[in-house]
Amino acid sequence: MDKLTPFRQLARLCLEKGVENVIISPGSRNALLTIAFSGQKGLSCFSISDERSAGYLAIGMALQTGKTTVLICTSGTAALNYAPAVAEAYFQEVPLLVLTADRPPEWIHQYDGQTIFQDNVYGKHVKEAFSWSSDLSDTKLREAESVSNKALNSTQRSPKGPVHINIPISEPFYPSRFEETDVNPWKVIEPKAFKPEIEGVSFLKALRRYPKRLLVVGQQHDEEVGKLASEFAGKFGFILVSDSISNISGGIKNQDHFLKKLSDKEKQTLCPDLLISTDMSLISKSLKLMLRGFDIQAHWHVQSNPAFIDPFRSLTKKVEITPLEFFQQTLNFDGLSNDENYQERWKSLEKKSSDSIRQYFEKPEFSEFHILRKLFHKIPEDCILHVGNSMSIRYVNALNSVLPSGCKVYCNRGTSGIDGCLSTAVGQALKTDKPVYCILGDVSFQYDKNALWNRYLPDNLKIIILNNSGGIIFNMIQGPSDQSSFEDYFKTMQPNRASYLAQEYGLDYFKITSPSEIEEGLRKFLTCHQKSILEIFTDYELNTLSYKKFFES
Amino acid sequence: MDKLTPFRQLARLCLEKGVENVIISPGSRNALLTIAFSGQKGLSCFSISDERSAGYLAIGMALQTGKTTVLICTSGTAALNYAPAVAEAYFQEVPLLVLTADRPPEWIHQYDGQTIFQDNVYGKHVKEAFSWSSDLSDTKLREAESVSNKALNSTQRSPKGPVHINIPISEPFYPSRFEETDVNPWKVIEPKAFKPEIEGVSFLKALRRYPKRLLVVGQQHDEEVGKLASEFAGKFGFILVSDSISNISGGIKNQDHFLKKLSDKEKQTLCPDLLISTDMSLISKSLKLMLRGFDIQAHWHVQSNPAFIDPFRSLTKKVEITPLEFFQQTLNFDGLSNDENYQERWKSLEKKSSDSIRQYFEKPEFSEFHILRKLFHKIPEDCILHVGNSMSIRYVNALNSVLPSGCKVYCNRGTSGIDGCLSTAVGQALKTDKPVYCILGDVSFQYDKNALWNRYLPDNLKIIILNNSGGIIFNMIQGPSDQSSFEDYFKTMQPNRASYLAQEYGLDYFKITSPSEIEEGLRKFLTCHQKSILEIFTDYELNTLSYKKFFES
Repeated sequence: MDKLTPFRQLARLCLEKGVENVIISPGSRNALLTIAFSGQKGLSCFSISDERSAGYLAIGMALQTGKTTVLICTSGTAALNYAPAVAEAYFQEVPLLVLTADRPPEWIHQYDGQTIFQDNVYGKHVKEAFSWSSDLSDTKLREAESVSNKALNSTQRSPKGPVHINIPISEPFYPSRFEETDVNPWKVIEPKAFKPEIEGVSFLKALRRYPKRLLVVGQQHDEEVGKLASEFAGKFGFILVSDSISNISGGIKNQDHFLKKLSDKEKQTLCPDLLISTDMSLISKSLKLMLRGFDIQAHWHVQSNPAFIDPFRSLTKKVEITPLEFFQQTLNFDGLSNDENYQERWKSLEKKSSDSIRQYFEKPEFSEFHILRKLFHKIPEDCILHVGNSMSIRYVNALNSVLPSGCKVYCNRGTSGIDGCLSTAVGQALKTDKPVYCILGDVSFQYDKNALWNRYLPDNLKIIILNNSGGIIFNMIQGPSDQSSFEDYFKTMQPNRASYLAQEYGLDYFKITSPSEIEEGLRKFLTCHQKSILEIFTDYELNTLSYKKFFES
Repeated sequence: MDKLTPFRQLARLCLEKGVENVIISPGSRNALLTIAFSGQKGLSCFSISDERSAGYLAIGMALQTGKTTVLICTSGTAALNYAPAVAEAYFQEVPLLVLTADRPPEWIHQYDGQTIFQDNVYGKHVKEAFSWSSDLSDTKLREAESVSNKALNSTQRSPKGPVHINIPISEPFYPSRFEETDVNPWKVIEPKAFKPEIEGVSFLKALRRYPKRLLVVGQQHDEEVGKLASEFAGKFGFILVSDSISNISGGIKNQDHFLKKLSDKEKQTLCPDLLISTDMSLISKSLKLMLRGFDIQAHWHVQSNPAFIDPFRSLTKKVEITPLEFFQQTLNFDGLSNDENYQERWKSLEKKSSDSIRQYFEKPEFSEFHILRKLFHKIPEDCILHVGNSMSIRYVNALNSVLPSGCKVYCNRGTSGIDGCLSTAVGQALKTDKPVYCILGDVSFQYDKNALWNRYLPDNLKIIILNNSGGIIFNMIQGPSDQSSFEDYFKTMQPNRASYLAQEYGLDYFKITSPSEIEEGLRKFLTCHQKSILEIFTDYELNTLSYKKFFES
């Protein structure tokens, strides 16, 4: 058997299992993988040199397609550079298959180059970790076939996530020239189907006991779930609260704005009898803290993840089913009346908040927050927003109620790192025709600048950098700014701008540095048909003030 | 007790244990660490935003000072971004103390932000991993004191290396303003001293049995070891072979050049009866392969690392002692005669090689290799060379015999990654007054460009970029260039140049793009008193040819 054959069989299996995108980082030890995958018709391969960026790009592609993205790298620290993205994918439940080439085990820790301990190198941050045998005899080949099927199934089994296969490869690394002959394909092993069913009678009986009902949807991107959640809330009398990253239209969205101002007593009137929460993380800290403070009679968390997750410390029941299945099944049951007063309290707070917010924004200010709001009035409906962590996502969440309808909001909230926001946005832009607006701070942009170091940047990539010369978030929190070490070690204080990188990587570059440039800057940026950057320079102190005033309005 | 106190005690303990340098990456969860360490007189603190670069910078500082560098980061993927440098430090045996702030354990995997599984996150790539308790009661404080002592001792105990302490910290993160009052210092626990002794009689008896003696010194940077190794070889009749990264003056250095051309029979005449090898990795692949092919009667590997390391698959005895101790002790014994013929064979090959190399370089060529040689004739003696992995270190190793005397060569050969070469060089430049020349390819430079994203770049930092628009190494190896996927997935093919980054980060920039610019380019670069970049643009194919011809010369 040709040395290349099992690698071609693996590539073929990936294709048959629905993989569309493969990101390869150059190396020698992974040559057989590279040759096999790049030679497999039907797979789109991308060459990305910085593995850290490659990992986050893979996440962006998987988010956009729902399909497992395959990552391929050489041995050594290459594998470790994937680690941040692997952890993000684990907690954000994004399907990745990580294939790392390795030395044969006998050469580990023998002062040989590019050799680390790769077996199980991602620890608990992968759903499962497998390895191929270094000696691919017939039995071992069957094992590789089975393991590869398992790994691919696991990436897509809910909760989706990253899975690792470590592949020891000995020299010679390069086969004779790739021949376009067919390989004997591996068998495709289907995953076991398992679908728990919710029983209508007990569901409705339970509901009746709890007239004050609250539905909180965490991070998710499925339009269908968004639609069904609203329907569910209407039919069964739930107040629906969500964040920008929950991608829900309707319901309560200003909670960040109004909860902060409420007394404990007022908050208590918002306490539900029954709380149903679904999906992953929330941005709204005031909502989280309020829910954690309540003594709720019943709290069901709906999610297929078997891990024990109790975000509000009030769990009474775990519904181990995907939110989609939960809404689909329960919507077949009859509707139910509810506590109107309870609903009214939430709704009037939301309404009052909307009015205050409108008034607040009527007074123009030269702050990031105000300019973002203007931007959101002008960007096309149906676009993709990828938002950086730290302040950017807080701004966007506070502006949740004015986001254009149909726009979908993404943010790496699995681990909330700043290290791969731009790369993830690039990955998304590569896999959609819609414009992708990546909004992020200057520190996040600089951190992940290697996102731009590839030859694939598409023209629908639109980057908005909020440049306030540093990590503004530390000024927002009471605490760090009181410290003598503030300027040096909290605020990042970086004087860099994106114009050089824009030139280097061939992006159009626009900037806003004063109030008079806002309209023109936005217009130019939004009508540009190339990949482009809009860098908004504002004052550190003014931004802080402006954002704080918002919550007092 | 003030919440800050144990953190100040830890900072003080680090100082008393010899720590000089602390690299802090901004974050909130690590605020108490940041405040305590930046407030500790006697410690130099640096703020570096990109943790991947911070980790490699820390290695550079530790290499230059011999002292443990402390790394401090916030929770989440920040910790994972250290992973590549931690692995490099582990295999290169560089002392680092990694302090990662963490959530209290009850908030892990609860969809809370910046939360990953941090306990033991570096797996086998740290010498030891500890954690503080999240509840610092009196007993737990004693435990933190003891654990912190252990960790610091472990970083410096031979073999040196990275050690991790994970520190869960709950809110509030910010104490009242830092007060300059004294803290009650923690006790300083001394490491246990242990020094095995070599017995003279049996050492000399053993030596007498083996008249053909070969000493191979792997990567090391200690001048004293370099000096003693030469003395040892002279006194006990060993042929001394070393690489550029062994930092030895004298002995055989052209092995890369002459071994490739020898027949198996000729090689056999170089087979020693006794091989003594010391320290870490070697670059010379032909030397490694030759030694692995020999059937050597006795092979002693001298190194304090208790792991079983057998780089040439011929080990008969492991001498668990540092090379420095080994040479110091054995040099007290009487000298010994040896097999003159055996020595002569090596020496005549070395001599012949030197002549061919001189002739080879007499014909000018516009290749990286030729320009580097010119450069080495002009750089000051006593400088520091930090060499990137992949082709750069191969060039430098082939030019080992023409390196200026007293210049010290460093390269991240622990894992041979390209991901942190520039950052390590920056760390070194910050801790020496000598000029630091960092020689690396365009891909390595672009990969680690965040090395330049900080406000500390010193004027003794001199960067030489070998820009051949891609990963030239893949062209050097027979194999990848035969593949149809070569241009897309092996050669990195990146059109970027460093001029934009030089502008952005305020480095002087010089370039060489044609033969007529060589002299002037080198002159300008070498006489520049600022931090600067020399970018050398040469042709991919010509470089390959030129390097191949060298080995045929």
